[in-house]
Amino acid sequence: MSLKLTILGCHSATPRSHAHPTSQYLEINGEHLLIDCGEGTQMQLRKYKVKFSRISRIFISHLHGDHFYGLIGLISTLSLLNRKNELHVYGPKGLKEIILLQLKLSKSWVDYPLIFHELDSKSSELIYESEKIQVHTVPLNHRIYTNGYIFREKPFPRKLDMQSVLRHKEIQTCDYQNLKDGKDFITSKGETIRNAQLTLDPPKPLAYGYCSDTAYSEEIVQYLQGVDLLYHESTFLETHQDLAESTRHSTAREAASIASKAQVQKLILGHYSGRYKDLNLFLEEAQQEFKDSELCEAGKVFELNNPDR
Amino acid sequence: MSLKLTILGCHSATPRSHAHPTSQYLEINGEHLLIDCGEGTQMQLRKYKVKFSRISRIFISHLHGDHFYGLIGLISTLSLLNRKNELHVYGPKGLKEIILLQLKLSKSWVDYPLIFHELDSKSSELIYESEKIQVHTVPLNHRIYTNGYIFREKPFPRKLDMQSVLRHKEIQTCDYQNLKDGKDFITSKGETIRNAQLTLDPPKPLAYGYCSDTAYSEEIVQYLQGVDLLYHESTFLETHQDLAESTRHSTAREAASIASKAQVQKLILGHYSGRYKDLNLFLEEAQQEFKDSELCEAGKVFELNNPDR
Repeated sequence: MSLKLTILGCHSATPRSHAHPTSQYLEINGEHLLIDCGEGTQMQLRKYKVKFSRISRIFISHLHGDHFYGLIGLISTLSLLNRKNELHVYGPKGLKEIILLQLKLSKSWVDYPLIFHELDSKSSELIYESEKIQVHTVPLNHRIYTNGYIFREKPFPRKLDMQSVLRHKEIQTCDYQNLKDGKDFITSKGETIRNAQLTLDPPKPLAYGYCSDTAYSEEIVQYLQGVDLLYHESTFLETHQDLAESTRHSTAREAASIASKAQVQKLILGHYSGRYKDLNLFLEEAQQEFKDSELCEAGKVFELNNPDR
Repeated sequence: MSLKLTILGCHSATPRSHAHPTSQYLEINGEHLLIDCGEGTQMQLRKYKVKFSRISRIFISHLHGDHFYGLIGLISTLSLLNRKNELHVYGPKGLKEIILLQLKLSKSWVDYPLIFHELDSKSSELIYESEKIQVHTVPLNHRIYTNGYIFREKPFPRKLDMQSVLRHKEIQTCDYQNLKDGKDFITSKGETIRNAQLTLDPPKPLAYGYCSDTAYSEEIVQYLQGVDLLYHESTFLETHQDLAESTRHSTAREAASIASKAQVQKLILGHYSGRYKDLNLFLEEAQQEFKDSELCEAGKVFELNNPDR
């Protein structure tokens, strides 16, 4: 019933000793997910004491190395750790071939069900749905086929207003589920008691949007509308606008502009190019457009809890 | 004119936050080589301030992930760093396919000549020779096709004994190379001055033997004879002899036994299984068989210099 995001790495390619490539661990409404998996992700998972076994699904944005070179190592390690549960991997077409070739040549087939969901649609699509969450893709504009992802809690049932419910003697425990589902109550005399009189609004489902890597693209705003927490890459500062355009990355100002247009609650920045020594310049630039911006760094945790839960 | 080995990682699979998988950086007689390349090797290279650009050749022992999952990342990073020089990669058949598939799918072809030398011979062979060094394979006994490597300095020319040379007025500067090559000097009167009277023994070429991963195998002793420094894996202690046999790894005592039989100068141990908390047990076990044993750890440097150079 909450959203907790742990940054495992948030720098762009050419990993340095303390600048890990992209990976994030997301706990959302009780599900445990990994988003991108740059080289060294499994070491970072250990460093930040994430229980490997809990991760059920991995979402890879695109096949540039700083977003997936750690995947084969993690998959192998899960096997060495005697995983038995299914592991679902979502990512661009080709990812399965890369992983299976390596497992084949090392004669190290994994003992758990490893299920690939390869993506090639250029439209946003629902790629995973459980009782708890939904995951949609966000088509991004990068040099190769790339998806962002939106992770949403499913709507919660309405909450019973017990004071009001107990005043109506005819309402039995077996009616509660209908009330939580938003239905009105019909008495034995055929009178309607409106659901709004018997229940309270449930907590608003939380949503997290992940957009990396991408050029500035207003197209994505429609999908991100009202997301609580948005990660949007900011590889460059606007002093390097030309580089951002030629490499199809974004500047901090552009990331903030998307956050502002999509009316998100909070923006987090990352995927910094190695050329910048002072990361605060990203924050300053973004905050000119969107005040509630924050920098990612490895080990940082962003946690959202709806106050009325 | 020396041998300097930097340990970048020396633990077996399932990398932990401070237990990096196998990789070693070897400087031998002016050549700069990388041996195995587990995940995170490029971060370790940066941590220990190795200049990436110097590495000219990479030797992969086998296709288990803890020995090569870091290779694709390093190859990509070298491209991002604008490498132009050739990079030669030696390793089992299949390695090229793994690397090229990933470069293809990420549309990130490298801008420097990347040359694969795929190995499939089950006999020891000379796989690289320059003016300075020779590299031979050592066929190992592991669960998949695996090679160890021996890196040897080429024999050095004999050193002129200038006091003696200058006593013989007929010897000109242009004769020096012949003397260094071991030839006798013939005077104008046809007299022979033996080379041993005019020159001194050159320094003994240094050699480094790398054996990982392998079950105990006396077969390899013949190749390792007289090597100065030997790395031999010691995944287990002899309390787990059964595991060593079933997984085709070695115990510390077995590593030491090979060192003793091959009459090497120094043995270094590594590839420790994650089950052991106290690595000193490896050292104690090995030293019972071979006194000059030492433990590897990331960042440790082993340096050999022939005193008479």
